[in-house]
Amino acid sequence: MTAAVTYECIKVCQQSGARLGKLHTPHGTFDTPMFMPVGTLATVKTMSPEELKEMGAGVILSNTYHLWLRPGEDIVEEAGGLHQFMNWDQGILTDSGGFQVFSLSDLREITEEGVHFRNHLNGEKLFLTPEKSIHIQNALGSDIMMAFDECPPYPAEREYLIDSLERTSRWAERCLAANKHPDRQALFGIVQGGVYEDLRKRSAEALTSLDFPGYAVGGLSVGEPKDLMYEALEYTTPLLPTNKPRYLMGVGSPDALVEGAIRGIDMFDCVLPTRIARNGTCMTSAGRLVIRNAKYARDFRPIDEQCDCHVCKTYSRAYIRHLVKANETFGFRLTTYHNLYFLIKLMERVRDAIREDRLIDFKDEFFEQYGFNQPNAKNF
Amino acid sequence: MTAAVTYECIKVCQQSGARLGKLHTPHGTFDTPMFMPVGTLATVKTMSPEELKEMGAGVILSNTYHLWLRPGEDIVEEAGGLHQFMNWDQGILTDSGGFQVFSLSDLREITEEGVHFRNHLNGEKLFLTPEKSIHIQNALGSDIMMAFDECPPYPAEREYLIDSLERTSRWAERCLAANKHPDRQALFGIVQGGVYEDLRKRSAEALTSLDFPGYAVGGLSVGEPKDLMYEALEYTTPLLPTNKPRYLMGVGSPDALVEGAIRGIDMFDCVLPTRIARNGTCMTSAGRLVIRNAKYARDFRPIDEQCDCHVCKTYSRAYIRHLVKANETFGFRLTTYHNLYFLIKLMERVRDAIREDRLIDFKDEFFEQYGFNQPNAKNF
Ligand SMILES: [Zn+2]
Ligand SMILES: [Zn+2]
Repeated sequence: MTAAVTYECIKVCQQSGARLGKLHTPHGTFDTPMFMPVGTLATVKTMSPEELKEMGAGVILSNTYHLWLRPGEDIVEEAGGLHQFMNWDQGILTDSGGFQVFSLSDLREITEEGVHFRNHLNGEKLFLTPEKSIHIQNALGSDIMMAFDECPPYPAEREYLIDSLERTSRWAERCLAANKHPDRQALFGIVQGGVYEDLRKRSAEALTSLDFPGYAVGGLSVGEPKDLMYEALEYTTPLLPTNKPRYLMGVGSPDALVEGAIRGIDMFDCVLPTRIARNGTCMTSAGRLVIRNAKYARDFRPIDEQCDCHVCKTYSRAYIRHLVKANETFGFRLTTYHNLYFLIKLMERVRDAIREDRLIDFKDEFFEQYGFNQPNAKNF
Repeated sequence: MTAAVTYECIKVCQQSGARLGKLHTPHGTFDTPMFMPVGTLATVKTMSPEELKEMGAGVILSNTYHLWLRPGEDIVEEAGGLHQFMNWDQGILTDSGGFQVFSLSDLREITEEGVHFRNHLNGEKLFLTPEKSIHIQNALGSDIMMAFDECPPYPAEREYLIDSLERTSRWAERCLAANKHPDRQALFGIVQGGVYEDLRKRSAEALTSLDFPGYAVGGLSVGEPKDLMYEALEYTTPLLPTNKPRYLMGVGSPDALVEGAIRGIDMFDCVLPTRIARNGTCMTSAGRLVIRNAKYARDFRPIDEQCDCHVCKTYSRAYIRHLVKANETFGFRLTTYHNLYFLIKLMERVRDAIREDRLIDFKDEFFEQYGFNQPNAKNF
């Protein structure tokens, strides 16, 4: 049987080793490396599906844990699945709920069977298992499902990580067995192991032996220094099969997207662009722009003079600042749209650079213009 | 000199006396009777200009008082005026600020010169005069400006109303004199007088003698019973010239729009459809629908099965309920879009009925289906 989702490598950048590829899904084929906007509760906050398409979004991510609680996976299933429920006919990836269980709940107990924890909304006792996670994701009908894993914090004890990743591997096998729709929903395994090379190797070996249609690198971007994250990627991605897509979870700052691509990552997701947008912070080709700043009160230029998105072609910093300061929804629509467009366009430029075997050069140019090369460069 | 805004009566409904007409403005010609969405702070809350156009909005209303405080009329003027600032190339009507001064500030002192009051945001002392209101509206560059008036509450003493409407008439004359751009910004006078026929007559005579390009009926929809409002319209609109547009301020419930049109009103505005939308309440052809209600959790029908708006063609009650309950912006975008579309479409049907000399029949059918004819019918 052909997997529901397959990866096709088009070329490898001779300068950087980054991969240009295509991800084939039941809801379309998408160019990689790519950035996936996050639509936690079956909506990318403030955006419409039409706007997401207009800006070039391909696959979006939605959260199993949140949809399980609200509105409930049974309602989404009755609606015909998440695609139909939210009117999104392109790709959808759902996470496993593991990350939220470990990050939102401070009362939890991990057993071999699964995790006991409390609903972050009302304190109710809940129990999530690999089978339950897959059951929910099957009901949601996402194109790409993630295996239920434990995502340990940083720093974590080596001994703890070993226990954790071995349990995660056993859970991965149970997830594979639980998938009722492998023909239309691809399950990705998640490599853990923190920032220990031998543990990453141990995790990768266990998971690749199970032959998932795709692999994620998990447990990064959880508070460790970026250098350590890049180093971990350097020894982890070579452990993954070249004919499968590689997904770096939770990464979305412009520098990390470029660095991740250079280290062989094909897929990224992060709430960063949408979350900071709702605070009025924009990503621009010249770095971070805080639109509330008084200096933009009479600035009639676009957010980013080099951006050709609908927002930058139409609205001024002065207008957007006014809306954001007055807490007007439309202001957050505009900053969200621009930020997502910025990252989607960045990935397009990354793909162009790979095609031209010059991703390292591109990185240097982009970082220089963005301001990443300055001492104490502000990120987000 | 031709006025910036002119009214052309196309026909009068033989059954109801309602007028079908066209309002010619510097930013386009619009069919009347019409409903104008409110965009208080240079944005119709949650909506984009593209969405407003798509739903058929023609003229929108913006608030002088609010824009004076934020971002300041000087910034809007520097941007090239309100149309350019907010990317709206169709009609804009600005109110005078009078209503907000009298409704938002509880510390105020009325003098012949103007009104001393406090900024509702920070308590700062402010002074608004007829000249200042027109100065701000000239800076905003709206197509239709409103004269600075006092809008007394209901009930109000007859003696107080007399003083007030005479001052309002003197202010109206000062507003006319202050308008720097009568060639491109039309100033409408506002008839006051509460629910006293002789006072309405006195106010209308004073104002019509000044020959404004349009007239509003003010001081209604301020808490009086609807019957009294309709009665006041019945004796007020015949006092107004037939060759000028008539605007009923602050009215937007479906029944009052139809009743107002029957009584010769051409223009309406109200925050009602957008405000209730942000609470999850929808207007439908079968009456009010509170989308948070548990019974819609698995209801996959559109908000209004008879509505052909983009929202009703695309999204289910179950999805919108989920979004609204989770406080997701997109949910409020959807309810706002539908509610505005509902009223814009209602006015289209009112115009069709006038054309066919059957507005009373239409009213009966519409009220019956909406549920207005039931005892204790719920409005908003
Ligand atoms: Zn932009
Ligand atoms: Zn509708």
